[in-house]
Amino acid sequence: EQPKVKVAVIYYSSTGTNYQLAKWAEEGAKQEGAEVKLVKVAELAPQTAIDSNSAWKAHLEETKDVPEASVDDLEWADAFIFSTPTRFGNLPSQMKQFLDTAGGLWGQGKLVNKVASGISSAGNPRGGQEKTVKHLYTTMMHWGAIIAAPGYTSPVAFSSGGNPYGTSVTVGDEGMQEDVQEAVKDQAKRTVTVTSMVKEGQEK
Amino acid sequence: EQPKVKVAVIYYSSTGTNYQLAKWAEEGAKQEGAEVKLVKVAELAPQTAIDSNSAWKAHLEETKDVPEASVDDLEWADAFIFSTPTRFGNLPSQMKQFLDTAGGLWGQGKLVNKVASGISSAGNPRGGQEKTVKHLYTTMMHWGAIIAAPGYTSPVAFSSGGNPYGTSVTVGDEGMQEDVQEAVKDQAKRTVTVTSMVKEGQEK
Amino acid sequence: EQPKVKVAVIYYSSTGTNYQLAKWAEEGAKQEGAEVKLVKVAELAPQTAIDSNSAWKAHLEETKDVPEASVDDLEWADAFIFSTPTRFGNLPSQMKQFLDTAGGLWGQGKLVNKVASGISSAGNPRGGQEKTVKHLYTTMMHWGAIIAAPGYTSPVAFSSGGNPYGTSVTVGDEGMQEDVQEAVKDQAKRTVTVTSMVKEGQEK
Amino acid sequence: EQPKVKVAVIYYSSTGTNYQLAKWAEEGAKQEGAEVKLVKVAELAPQTAIDSNSAWKAHLEETKDVPEASVDDLEWADAFIFSTPTRFGNLPSQMKQFLDTAGGLWGQGKLVNKVASGISSAGNPRGGQEKTVKHLYTTMMHWGAIIAAPGYTSPVAFSSGGNPYGTSVTVGDEGMQEDVQEAVKDQAKRTVTVTSMVKEGQEK
Repeated sequence: EQPKVKVAVIYYSSTGTNYQLAKWAEEGAKQEGAEVKLVKVAELAPQTAIDSNSAWKAHLEETKDVPEASVDDLEWADAFIFSTPTRFGNLPSQMKQFLDTAGGLWGQGKLVNKVASGISSAGNPRGGQEKTVKHLYTTMMHWGAIIAAPGYTSPVAFSSGGNPYGTSVTVGDEGMQEDVQEAVKDQAKRTVTVTSMVKEGQEK
Repeated sequence: EQPKVKVAVIYYSSTGTNYQLAKWAEEGAKQEGAEVKLVKVAELAPQTAIDSNSAWKAHLEETKDVPEASVDDLEWADAFIFSTPTRFGNLPSQMKQFLDTAGGLWGQGKLVNKVASGISSAGNPRGGQEKTVKHLYTTMMHWGAIIAAPGYTSPVAFSSGGNPYGTSVTVGDEGMQEDVQEAVKDQAKRTVTVTSMVKEGQEK
Repeated sequence: EQPKVKVAVIYYSSTGTNYQLAKWAEEGAKQEGAEVKLVKVAELAPQTAIDSNSAWKAHLEETKDVPEASVDDLEWADAFIFSTPTRFGNLPSQMKQFLDTAGGLWGQGKLVNKVASGISSAGNPRGGQEKTVKHLYTTMMHWGAIIAAPGYTSPVAFSSGGNPYGTSVTVGDEGMQEDVQEAVKDQAKRTVTVTSMVKEGQEK
Repeated sequence: EQPKVKVAVIYYSSTGTNYQLAKWAEEGAKQEGAEVKLVKVAELAPQTAIDSNSAWKAHLEETKDVPEASVDDLEWADAFIFSTPTRFGNLPSQMKQFLDTAGGLWGQGKLVNKVASGISSAGNPRGGQEKTVKHLYTTMMHWGAIIAAPGYTSPVAFSSGGNPYGTSVTVGDEGMQEDVQEAVKDQAKRTVTVTSMVKEGQEK
């Protein structure tokens, strides 16, 4: 029997959207038979900024038991699914900070042929949802990762915004503006499927 | 009195969406006092492909009197507003073909400090609307153009998709899925305003 | 025994650089056991432009027997290796024109899980070599392709410009300015290896 | 008499390359008549990481009197020149962290029509030098900034790597691998010139 595909779902979330997206990704990946670690990247914002935003503060409290992502998770995983909001069209510094810590693994070639996939959110339908995922993939290419963007492989792609680079969602005061749950799960399943191919092919 | 700002609105359209966007851009630019040339880039598709799509055929017939864009328009203009659909997240070959003809002007430095702005459309809300405009700007940077993306400078940015790189619209079987008319006009006005600053500043 | 991995090496070249790069890619892929088709995309430039440049004219004559790329090649292949010069930081219209013809295959889902990798050239060391390959990958993501950029997986990455998105080369009046032959071959080999994993994994 | 153009040169540097680039930018901008503030973004790395790298530690000590960048500098300046190394093809988290703090100014529209220009470095000639500057510009577009990339406007563009998005340099164990001093100064001068146009045009 094949060993399970190992997936690290790595997210940053200030008020909960990307935590929800990450949990859907976890659920989809498990449904496809993967072993999944759901981890959050470390917060960088000063406590005063967090305290001034009750939703942020509440979310951090709610997720205080979610483990923090470490480079060991990158080494352990066969595949990475990142879920991250945009900050001005690019990754938040919190997510970038985590990626930046991988220099040691990179130098040892331990990030090569990991499969990578990204998910994002923004306050506007075209407010950086495409760019944020694409900027993530720039870094994945430096790592030698294999990129498995969803394209239009899921039947729900067209009803969930149709972002071929990675499923993404618009977030307003009332939360998510589109129903992307199935699209996120399908992206996670596709990530596992591609990883499984790569892994089984590698072991032959 | 200041000479008018000269704007070339350059579009590619197969079935009419970007022609409409370009006309709105023309209208906005004129309202801001600019002299505007509205020009289409040459079609590259074989006649058989066009004939097999009645909407495409009808649109080409409808716009047969719109002048074709030439490199002279690039030299004449103080500013370019491009309107273009996506083709797999990048410019259609028709638009790229036109841009590729500018090598001579580029070699003479005649594209430097032109102001550039882009508008796009796609079949999905996140189906390349951001990337298509951004890929256009890559070329504009090679030209030494000054890029005036709309950002969130227009009050209607947030109700029209919020694409900070350039106004864009989703196109379905029933036509445009969002009302972007004011956003396109505001982007055109902003382009004229920035160009006017650059031009008047240059002449001082 | 496993069936051979099928690779389409698809290039555009006006004066021969990318034809050479494509031949190295072909050689690398064959060394790794693949079945390879080397095809050129159709020329779009008017004959007068070609005739005015003796090197261009000579190259077209020299390669007149190289088959032209068709969408059938895209359907046939398990993997695509594209080799293309930059034109103002983006694909030449000739290459984009070819990609744009794949709409029918895309609509039938026949481009999903093809493995893709890109190679480029430019007149300046940082004159769009990164961007051109990255813009190609934007389209590959729309296709649902699996992207196998070289990263720093080849031992010669660091002596050949270190472009992690795809091997690339600077071209001057005296031809290629860096020795990228081994890097191109290694990228082709890696493409075959990743494709082999994907294919064998898929068939299990 | 016209008031001086105000330029914030904002850099991140771990071992000194981008500090040097930033000082050249400062010098170029001053030669063009600008008032310049040279500021560094705050370090995020833990002291243990810094202490383990003697060059990093020494550089931080050497530059301890350079003021830290604040959002007030963004509000004060007419133009921003950013100088930053790559980290896996994108901005280092330190630089992104600083940009992320500008949400308040952005919400008040105070970043609109600032002129922006970027400079970068990487360990490989094509190791993200293009992408890092381009990713910076994504954020600048969200801000409503006017982007003045150098293109090929400087006569030394072609001898300094020819990066049209922003001057950039390769850094090895022996320091900078190309002579980009004049290109950086010319980019700074161009930034001041464009800003001067925009500012004088605005005030008319």
